[in-house]
Amino acid sequence: MKGVVLFAHGARNPEWARPIEAIAAAMRARQPQTPVKAAYLEFIAPSLPEAVAELAEAGCDEIAIVPMFMANSGHTQRDLPALLELAVRERPWLALRLAAPIGEAEAVVEAIASYALGA
Amino acid sequence: MKGVVLFAHGARNPEWARPIEAIAAAMRARQPQTPVKAAYLEFIAPSLPEAVAELAEAGCDEIAIVPMFMANSGHTQRDLPALLELAVRERPWLALRLAAPIGEAEAVVEAIASYALGA
Repeated sequence: MKGVVLFAHGARNPEWARPIEAIAAAMRARQPQTPVKAAYLEFIAPSLPEAVAELAEAGCDEIAIVPMFMANSGHTQRDLPALLELAVRERPWLALRLAAPIGEAEAVVEAIASYALGA
Repeated sequence: MKGVVLFAHGARNPEWARPIEAIAAAMRARQPQTPVKAAYLEFIAPSLPEAVAELAEAGCDEIAIVPMFMANSGHTQRDLPALLELAVRERPWLALRLAAPIGEAEAVVEAIASYALGA
């Protein structure tokens, strides 16, 4: 079974998680059979290894990690690979697939452009 | 005339700016009469006051500032107001309007959800 982790930065204020949880909820509404978890680099739980462990325990053997970042940076190119390594250490049979950051997705770029023009 | 500033975090690698510039290009393609500038908090030029100055010199008297952030945090609630104050100090006639971060826009949430489900 395939699952998805939305990997986001996090912030001191737990309210920061709200849009990420809204994205997860929109995904569950569209495709209830796909388990989705948010995971945070800093300040907010769960961490990426924790979210991956929860999806594995729910029966996922293939997990897409989608960075909720506009572009690649140290967070996606240094922190994230280290976290992925931790996440598979105890479950080497897990297939983790790292997606491009959201700013690379044309439909996301178009949606942000529409929003910004209406702002 | 109204203009738009896309206010993004920035990163050491100048390549980071690519998706933000893609959003600006998509906006110009749709609405060529609206001047659009990207501005960065860190590492990449121009800064927010510089981008606002450029739009003012291009004839804008009203500028929407759209945070390219998933949610509000210290960057949008502390750094950004200080930069807006700097930006209007020499041009008190400018009307700057701060929009909600992209993660608050329902169409953006839906586009990210679609992308993540297909990842």
